[in-house]
Amino acid sequence: MKAFMDKDFLLQTETARKLYHEEAAQLPIIDYHCHLDPRQVAEDYRFRSITELWLGGDHYKWRALRSNGVDERYITGDASDWEKFEKWAETMPYCMRNPLYHWTHLELRTAFGIQKILNPKSAREIYEQCNEMLQRPEFSARGLMRRYRVEVVCTTDDPADSLQYHQAYAKEIAAQENKDGKAENATFTKMLPTWRPDKALAIDDPVQFRQYLTRLGTAADLEISSYDTLLEALQRRHDFFASLGCRLSDHGLEEFYADDFTEAEVRQIFSRALDGQQVSATDVRKYRSALLLEFGRQDHRAGWTQQFHYGPIRNNNTRMMQQLGPDSGFDSIGTPNTARQMARFLDRLCCEGSLPQTILYNINPSDNEMLATMAGNFQEGPVAGKIQFGSGWWFNDQKDGMERQMNALSTLGLLSRFVGMLTDSRSFLSYPRHEYFRRTLCNLLGQDVENGELPEEEMPQIRQMVRDICYWNAKRYFRF
Amino acid sequence: MKAFMDKDFLLQTETARKLYHEEAAQLPIIDYHCHLDPRQVAEDYRFRSITELWLGGDHYKWRALRSNGVDERYITGDASDWEKFEKWAETMPYCMRNPLYHWTHLELRTAFGIQKILNPKSAREIYEQCNEMLQRPEFSARGLMRRYRVEVVCTTDDPADSLQYHQAYAKEIAAQENKDGKAENATFTKMLPTWRPDKALAIDDPVQFRQYLTRLGTAADLEISSYDTLLEALQRRHDFFASLGCRLSDHGLEEFYADDFTEAEVRQIFSRALDGQQVSATDVRKYRSALLLEFGRQDHRAGWTQQFHYGPIRNNNTRMMQQLGPDSGFDSIGTPNTARQMARFLDRLCCEGSLPQTILYNINPSDNEMLATMAGNFQEGPVAGKIQFGSGWWFNDQKDGMERQMNALSTLGLLSRFVGMLTDSRSFLSYPRHEYFRRTLCNLLGQDVENGELPEEEMPQIRQMVRDICYWNAKRYFRF
Amino acid sequence: MKAFMDKDFLLQTETARKLYHEEAAQLPIIDYHCHLDPRQVAEDYRFRSITELWLGGDHYKWRALRSNGVDERYITGDASDWEKFEKWAETMPYCMRNPLYHWTHLELRTAFGIQKILNPKSAREIYEQCNEMLQRPEFSARGLMRRYRVEVVCTTDDPADSLQYHQAYAKEIAAQENKDGKAENATFTKMLPTWRPDKALAIDDPVQFRQYLTRLGTAADLEISSYDTLLEALQRRHDFFASLGCRLSDHGLEEFYADDFTEAEVRQIFSRALDGQQVSATDVRKYRSALLLEFGRQDHRAGWTQQFHYGPIRNNNTRMMQQLGPDSGFDSIGTPNTARQMARFLDRLCCEGSLPQTILYNINPSDNEMLATMAGNFQEGPVAGKIQFGSGWWFNDQKDGMERQMNALSTLGLLSRFVGMLTDSRSFLSYPRHEYFRRTLCNLLGQDVENGELPEEEMPQIRQMVRDICYWNAKRYFRF
Repeated sequence: MKAFMDKDFLLQTETARKLYHEEAAQLPIIDYHCHLDPRQVAEDYRFRSITELWLGGDHYKWRALRSNGVDERYITGDASDWEKFEKWAETMPYCMRNPLYHWTHLELRTAFGIQKILNPKSAREIYEQCNEMLQRPEFSARGLMRRYRVEVVCTTDDPADSLQYHQAYAKEIAAQENKDGKAENATFTKMLPTWRPDKALAIDDPVQFRQYLTRLGTAADLEISSYDTLLEALQRRHDFFASLGCRLSDHGLEEFYADDFTEAEVRQIFSRALDGQQVSATDVRKYRSALLLEFGRQDHRAGWTQQFHYGPIRNNNTRMMQQLGPDSGFDSIGTPNTARQMARFLDRLCCEGSLPQTILYNINPSDNEMLATMAGNFQEGPVAGKIQFGSGWWFNDQKDGMERQMNALSTLGLLSRFVGMLTDSRSFLSYPRHEYFRRTLCNLLGQDVENGELPEEEMPQIRQMVRDICYWNAKRYFRF
Repeated sequence: MKAFMDKDFLLQTETARKLYHEEAAQLPIIDYHCHLDPRQVAEDYRFRSITELWLGGDHYKWRALRSNGVDERYITGDASDWEKFEKWAETMPYCMRNPLYHWTHLELRTAFGIQKILNPKSAREIYEQCNEMLQRPEFSARGLMRRYRVEVVCTTDDPADSLQYHQAYAKEIAAQENKDGKAENATFTKMLPTWRPDKALAIDDPVQFRQYLTRLGTAADLEISSYDTLLEALQRRHDFFASLGCRLSDHGLEEFYADDFTEAEVRQIFSRALDGQQVSATDVRKYRSALLLEFGRQDHRAGWTQQFHYGPIRNNNTRMMQQLGPDSGFDSIGTPNTARQMARFLDRLCCEGSLPQTILYNINPSDNEMLATMAGNFQEGPVAGKIQFGSGWWFNDQKDGMERQMNALSTLGLLSRFVGMLTDSRSFLSYPRHEYFRRTLCNLLGQDVENGELPEEEMPQIRQMVRDICYWNAKRYFRF
Repeated sequence: MKAFMDKDFLLQTETARKLYHEEAAQLPIIDYHCHLDPRQVAEDYRFRSITELWLGGDHYKWRALRSNGVDERYITGDASDWEKFEKWAETMPYCMRNPLYHWTHLELRTAFGIQKILNPKSAREIYEQCNEMLQRPEFSARGLMRRYRVEVVCTTDDPADSLQYHQAYAKEIAAQENKDGKAENATFTKMLPTWRPDKALAIDDPVQFRQYLTRLGTAADLEISSYDTLLEALQRRHDFFASLGCRLSDHGLEEFYADDFTEAEVRQIFSRALDGQQVSATDVRKYRSALLLEFGRQDHRAGWTQQFHYGPIRNNNTRMMQQLGPDSGFDSIGTPNTARQMARFLDRLCCEGSLPQTILYNINPSDNEMLATMAGNFQEGPVAGKIQFGSGWWFNDQKDGMERQMNALSTLGLLSRFVGMLTDSRSFLSYPRHEYFRRTLCNLLGQDVENGELPEEEMPQIRQMVRDICYWNAKRYFRF
């Protein structure tokens, strides 16, 4: 009987334990995709309570609470911090086998040093202890990043965003480093923006679209009066993002778009939308097919990596959408049938020699094998692993999902060239997911070695593989 | 080497064995969805032979026999009971690794106390012993339900059905209980009807549809001359079902329907069908989209739970369909792409505040993750687990399918709130599937505990989880 | 710690080891589907180098090299044999967990007796040793087939192919056997053609289609001037293939076609294509729906087995397609949604009593369960396992894919009746995949026995199952 979440958590073989403790656990974190708020980093935010930190914006936990029959008042409503925490503690025992059970206890252990199991009996004590600790400076936003040795963090930002907090933070760090001398092991987390131009694709909602174009035009110091000026505005902002160290773009899509279109058509479609006209479904697809290509070209010119997160169906619960807005835990896994369009999109960029490094993330794990082989269609030197099958995303960001993603990638591509884990999180407490991922990876490799499916005499290479996937591949791939 | 199907069958850890023997095995069965014949219960049917019981209507076994190259005469034809049984015994060794191998031997062991392996050598002896035992009163329909401690059984019934056997049986039980005093542990299985109005959706076949409307009208004592009178007739029957204790509806769908429609359109479509006109594919969808909503509303008003079994493609073998009729083993797993329509259907009910408790069953296991997250979109208090991801259905009703369903539910929802197993069977010998399910559940939990993935110190909670999933959740959820 | 790839590789239980060494390993190979070049067999080809043998045409390895960032010059370009081999050796350590890592070392061990791990350090020595051995007569094309005890091999051939190498080889063997007396254990591998008429379906490319019809007409000694003369030409070639011992057809499809059509329509569509007109997408489907049926009828009359490999999307990388042609490693797993059409196609043949033995291979493992149940719709005696769910194909031809295919088949059909493994390979070194498959099969069965999920007392039957799946089922099913 293994103790719950002890130091060898998830590590079922001696080889796995060696790989984890001697290699993986030693490395800092590169979190190349997340949704942290740059302002909280820039201002080194202090958290009011564990409730704010855990339950303030985590739609995974909200879903669990709702599934447990908890009233919305205790989830997103006006209940007090303690009341909300108490409901969470009551729900915790019902979360056994859900990744939240592991995340919660891993966070308690690694951030707060609390070994207790969270349940109604321990709730008050844990609540108070966490809140007390959160008052300490080392539990600020930056303090938590330091604690988890986060070397780089890439936030997710709209092209119209001023990036003022990125600028302020970068300036402060530079000043500090000038003063202290640049340390060997960076004491400051580097924060970089990521280019996420989803709103520029949202031509199906003309009212919001036009408002957005106004904001984007303002940011770019350019009046967007045509498709060509849209591209110009985007390019200006792209350049600005690049000037702040941006190395990645990201796109949230329900499916891929690679319909036939002409530039003339797209210009007309855009003009009609600008005039406030409703755009037909066919024209929406044409427009998106065109603009996605432009996004790829821009990234390719800048030497960036483009990311695609595709497949969810969002805001399925209209009533709650109206009450709480988007991203509140009412999204789910879709069944996109998009292989052909994805291939076509990537092929178009490839044909014109402007396919950037690309990471493809699926939300429906049934697509794992399709995606792993899709990446293989467009691999080419000199970059190893140019097209990446991204780490288990969203609902797949848990042990089973990670294992399935890594097994599919292993079997159908090269696991060794994988850029590894990211948090995709809005929380400063999510970094233990990197630990979770690393344990899972080491466990897979350890089992293979001990089963005679990988050669023990190649352990130096296997250790290297662990170091690469946990840290070095990302570092090299993104050229941070 | 573990002995075949011994008392610790499927239980690979000490913890699993404890959970099963001390908790799961102690509990009675709530079989909230099956296809037993109420008449056989009401008349306490005695079976002519093990052939009748096993091979009389079990299309799983028929498929296995056909796959084994057996002539149809020995499957559904005029061969004698012994000849059919002999073919089954010959096929048995070729069923290794198929769930039928386990079901068959589990049934032999738990119903008849026969430990022998069924094969051509043991066939005659087993045949005779079973047949001899089936003559005894304790092997009648009710006797078998008592043997397996079936507390509640929900049959599947058409709205036009008179439910006379339900009435007769209920009356007999009530009389007996009045006489004997109500025992602490019910000695009688409670039998309730389930509302399955599939035929009212089948507007694509006008001839059969009109015949059905006539039968339904007769049952409701109302002439169905319009869409509105159809709804009225359904409501009357719904009320009647409710008066006999019905708490569930069930719907067999190839896909979900949530197209746009107006009431006026639907009334016209219905009238055309009533006039004997063929209805276009588009109009079939509109009609179904409308009526499915009405079904949901009716269930919501009555406080029932609606069930959806979606995704199979049926009667694929036209020649055998013509020879044997439907449900003869020629159905298979479809590839429905219905996530959007499912979301839309549930959302419409949710928006108007009339979404009942709902159980969603998929036939294609590739949909497991989609479905588990779909449920999460519509969870809300005060009912815990209001929207259920149903237990592995039909082809998934076996160890691998159960494990995948439970793992997906665990990871993407709350396993603790799961209402658990049902037989979905036409056979009085299928109850050991509950045992199979319970062993599988306990084994998953036992492994997690012993691997350090669940805390041993929370064993009381884990024991509670086992009791809940095996019995109490269903009892509470359906309010039996 | 098990040693890497020792004699008990992949065999995790004592029972698995017994089953493999005492049963599976003893049997010769029937390779009923591959893409070997008949000329190389007829001329008993000698390989220039291990580079030619391994890297000359293996698009699996090419994909791995590209994923590893290797320049195309070292893959399909003009680099020397040694340079290419060196790149492969450099890539090898990055292939850990990819099946290529196992295939490569299994081939080194079983063909060349080399136990070393291939990596940059061992590369030169292994290269030279292999090349030296390849000069020996026992390493010729036929020598390798003898080494692996290949009893029958079925190549893949176009109806327009002259089959001259099949004829020459058959004649040579017959002469030799006349001289030597027919040995008990055949010393010669029997080589049979397989009918693969994909090009006759490719009516969407009128230019190539017409060229093909000319070639086909020449081969059949008939001018193809109409749909009816096409059928006549195909029938003549079908008869010719049959005269050389052909027992299988094979079809590579993206999806199934079973649209409605009339013979008159199809005749017109064909005539228009023959006139050089472009055929609409709808008409392409009608034509294919018609011709696929004819293929089935021809096979049924001849008593052949038809095979369908469906689901890939091909030549996704247009740039590389133009540079290297098809089948160069730029194909991937599609997401065909073809269950209904597949059912309809099989049903049409079944209804008219002309459904031949059929093997269905899917490329997307998400279809495993759908396919396993589809086969069940059309099973009928007297042939056991008439409709086969084919062995893990292409990207699924590895341990995980094999296990998933066998588990789905076990659960949803009869594993015992499975015709087992084929290489589907262009390489004379691929036969160890049969060993790999056999080990995987024995491991699954061994685990079940030792877990108490299969009865140890039925070991003779389980041994029989192993022998059947590895050899005898194919021998009987194809009547070789």
